Amino acid sequence: MKFHIHQTHHTIADFQGIKSYLESILEQGLPGVHIFPELFLCGYPLHDLCLQKSFIEKYQIFMSELDELFRGNKNSDQLFLLGGIKYELTEDGLPLKLLNVIFKAVPGSSLEAIYAKQLLPNYDIFDEMKYFSVGSGPEILEYNGLKIGLLICEDMWSSSFHQKDPVHELKLLCEEKGASLDMVVNLSASPFVFGKTEKRMDRAKFISNHFESPFLYVNRVGGEDEILFDGQSFVVNGDNVELEMPRFKADQATYELQDKSLKYKKKKKGSGANTWEQLFAARIASKSPKLDPLTPDDCEEVIEALCFGFQEYARKNGFNRFTIALSGGMDSALVLALIKLSLKEGQYLEAIYMPSIHSSPLSHELSLQLCESLGIPFKSLPIKFLHSTSKNLFSQTFPESFEGLTDENVQSRLRGMLIYTRSNQIGSMVVNTSNKSELAVGYSTQYGDSVGAISMLGDLYKSEVFTIAKHINKTRNNLIPEQIITRPPSAELRPDQVDTESLPPYERLDAILEGLLTYRHSMKDLVEFGFKKDEVEKSSTCTGRPNIKDTNSAQL
Amino acid sequence: MKFHIHQTHHTIADFQGIKSYLESILEQGLPGVHIFPELFLCGYPLHDLCLQKSFIEKYQIFMSELDELFRGNKNSDQLFLLGGIKYELTEDGLPLKLLNVIFKAVPGSSLEAIYAKQLLPNYDIFDEMKYFSVGSGPEILEYNGLKIGLLICEDMWSSSFHQKDPVHELKLLCEEKGASLDMVVNLSASPFVFGKTEKRMDRAKFISNHFESPFLYVNRVGGEDEILFDGQSFVVNGDNVELEMPRFKADQATYELQDKSLKYKKKKKGSGANTWEQLFAARIASKSPKLDPLTPDDCEEVIEALCFGFQEYARKNGFNRFTIALSGGMDSALVLALIKLSLKEGQYLEAIYMPSIHSSPLSHELSLQLCESLGIPFKSLPIKFLHSTSKNLFSQTFPESFEGLTDENVQSRLRGMLIYTRSNQIGSMVVNTSNKSELAVGYSTQYGDSVGAISMLGDLYKSEVFTIAKHINKTRNNLIPEQIITRPPSAELRPDQVDTESLPPYERLDAILEGLLTYRHSMKDLVEFGFKKDEVEKSSTCTGRPNIKDTNSAQL
Repeated sequence: MKFHIHQTHHTIADFQGIKSYLESILEQGLPGVHIFPELFLCGYPLHDLCLQKSFIEKYQIFMSELDELFRGNKNSDQLFLLGGIKYELTEDGLPLKLLNVIFKAVPGSSLEAIYAKQLLPNYDIFDEMKYFSVGSGPEILEYNGLKIGLLICEDMWSSSFHQKDPVHELKLLCEEKGASLDMVVNLSASPFVFGKTEKRMDRAKFISNHFESPFLYVNRVGGEDEILFDGQSFVVNGDNVELEMPRFKADQATYELQDKSLKYKKKKKGSGANTWEQLFAARIASKSPKLDPLTPDDCEEVIEALCFGFQEYARKNGFNRFTIALSGGMDSALVLALIKLSLKEGQYLEAIYMPSIHSSPLSHELSLQLCESLGIPFKSLPIKFLHSTSKNLFSQTFPESFEGLTDENVQSRLRGMLIYTRSNQIGSMVVNTSNKSELAVGYSTQYGDSVGAISMLGDLYKSEVFTIAKHINKTRNNLIPEQIITRPPSAELRPDQVDTESLPPYERLDAILEGLLTYRHSMKDLVEFGFKKDEVEKSSTCTGRPNIKDTNSAQL
Repeated sequence: MKFHIHQTHHTIADFQGIKSYLESILEQGLPGVHIFPELFLCGYPLHDLCLQKSFIEKYQIFMSELDELFRGNKNSDQLFLLGGIKYELTEDGLPLKLLNVIFKAVPGSSLEAIYAKQLLPNYDIFDEMKYFSVGSGPEILEYNGLKIGLLICEDMWSSSFHQKDPVHELKLLCEEKGASLDMVVNLSASPFVFGKTEKRMDRAKFISNHFESPFLYVNRVGGEDEILFDGQSFVVNGDNVELEMPRFKADQATYELQDKSLKYKKKKKGSGANTWEQLFAARIASKSPKLDPLTPDDCEEVIEALCFGFQEYARKNGFNRFTIALSGGMDSALVLALIKLSLKEGQYLEAIYMPSIHSSPLSHELSLQLCESLGIPFKSLPIKFLHSTSKNLFSQTFPESFEGLTDENVQSRLRGMLIYTRSNQIGSMVVNTSNKSELAVGYSTQYGDSVGAISMLGDLYKSEVFTIAKHINKTRNNLIPEQIITRPPSAELRPDQVDTESLPPYERLDAILEGLLTYRHSMKDLVEFGFKKDEVEKSSTCTGRPNIKDTNSAQL
């Protein structure tokens, strides 16, 4: 029996595109089981969209069209397993109950929901308990003499953290029925997390060994705002990886299930159970936080993810032109280089340098060099005159001083205004260039350097920004002028300003932030690990150029 | 027996303030049962803060101090019922399980969690299932011969929408024990919703009649970003309202429970059960959407809520100065008037008028008149010169035209830049002046008129903005120049511009938006109700001055 894995890439609610895809698969007529990702039929994550009547109406029409499509097709060698929503509606057409299900589609018959997801993730970015009801229990699909265990995404995990253990329940059902599975399939829409792939594979091997059957995992591809789906679908058989699909690319692959006697390749060595906690719970407590240095492979994975995510966002929002504000510093240089690397036929990328009276000639020179190196149009829009005009306007109108933060932030905001004016002029997308370290401490200007449609480096600490830049230079012919990487970081908003006047050095700041954000240490913990108290405090409150303290709680 | 209702108003995690409050109550020594709101000991809503180790450590220290405080106190006539979190922690001090509980505190003893919330709201703005575990069942507290039924907030509601019915379970427990309740108490932190008070009271009467005992409801006061807590605690006895506390004010009141024979005042008339659906589910489907006109009482309630919410936000973010950009139009005028009405001793409010070449002399005159009427300093910062300078800078640098949206948005963004420069100069808070209608259709400029720390009118449709303004003029001595209310709305970004060039007239736009947002109609429904197709389409997509389409789904 052949299992066809459809690692698909569709826009949320692109019913026409999804239908066309299914039509072409039906037309090809490959016999076997066709497996699609979780919520393939509607997209994921939908958030409140799945409660909107306009969405529901269109989905219902689409589902009846699909029904017709499958009923009208006579190729009886095919079975489709499709992720989708099963709605229970009120008389008024509003949602009463939603299930995240696997639809079984056999040509000649209607679609039938055969399994509903049991573990609904509701932590971190997930909010599935807001929308879906919990599935009632495990299911085994019997098809042409094969017994197929069904799981949807989170169902493959279990731990004390979760309320249920669907893998265990499936095992109990097998025992109850005296059934031995020929295959376990998992339909997923699982967000990309740096370093997650191997852990997912480990857990898959555990499940394969547990059921003594191959385990097939299909995941979607796509970018939905800040979430990416990496694909990387696979089949494991015992401890063997028998099929691996690419990351961040739609693809189709076929896995042929062997004769019964050969199907399961026995476990070679004892692999410990991989629980959810071991894999995803915050690393914590007993050790001092540090950033694991990115290996060259890591850097490639990050570059691929950032380029893919950027292009997804641009495409879905209809942009083919991009405008980047260059400062002569590291962050904007890396953003420009990454977008250049991601650029597709027909797309346009430009850089705008907006010097103020505090910008050094070196910043201009390095920005120009970078654009020459990348082959990108470079324009300079000096803000000196707008800056002095604004200053004069204020001194004529108000008695208060224009020094300090006022004078610093106005430069940043004039740049925000100009870059968005350019965006309006040519219909281009502005990309934000802040890094995670700056964002975490608020070292940026509201409506100034914090503007942009999407943040390219918002998940990278400053020290990681440097690592990626060096990696790009090593592997891509020194695209970025070396001095951009070696000069001390500065906002250049006052004479001789450097970031370290306001912030701890980045190697320590980033470790402290990693402690606070990922290891979930308290400030007390960090001081006990040997970090300086004032640096911990600086790192955990706004220290930079904040305009408003955006917290509603007492200082913690 | 006396029940003391503490309608409290504390900042989230203000452990010192909460402790002082309890100390003063212990010192007063009023005998009886002291009842506090849901999560009184930590604040609500906490979102991810309740998972942060720094928060948990401080909360644990605070809880042991409280324990000591109560154990050290010898006034045995007092019982405290306090809302708080009960943590189960890992060895590393990280949260394993959280319960939203009622702590019982009796002087001389330790704090004891006696009931955990059973209905965790997880829809709309609520996400309690992300943090809390579900309580195990109903509880009756016995104290000095009294039987007190315990509920926390959402527990008082039930419907097919919820998974449980705690009121029903409490009733079953009474029957099982052969117990008749002397009182039902509900500790709440229930967000303000316009028009909710009466519905809440109706449900309370139902519960009082159901248990044949008085029903005591205590709610907190406060503003947490976009959510307000109105207080309005009360006691109902059968269909009688026996005690009502003020809205948006901390307060303390005492309810004396009568002799057993007199305690419950019998139901006079049949009041139907008030389920959650009847009260809070979206009004929908069979009728055409319309905005119910605001009565004078409604207007007062709205004004009170907006002034309270504004002052809460300002206080918690440490602002005592406020800068408002005036345009000569309705929205900014109403914002200025409302803030003036809310102003406290020592606070400073100023208005900045920033005319462009398209601003009419009337806008200047009306803005000035408004400031004179309100007694607020008025400054003019003309943007003409910055506008032409920006335009020249672009024409010297780029070949593309500067017409249309580019030229319109640059004016709005220059104002955004200037108003925030002023904010930096005097440390004032900028208040956004957009209304709900504009926000819903995207009729504003990103980083332009959409800037601001808090949106004052973001929950009011434009037609409601007019109603409130007229009401203020009627009741507050014509504070707002009449012509501001009667002139046609315009963004004044191009010659002779009026809103109706881009949008349907507000009375129809607002009805369509109410249909889409509240009644949850689809576009198809609205056309069937007789709205024009092109107006429905205009109302449900960005029609104004958008810079970026911020959607990741196919057009629905």
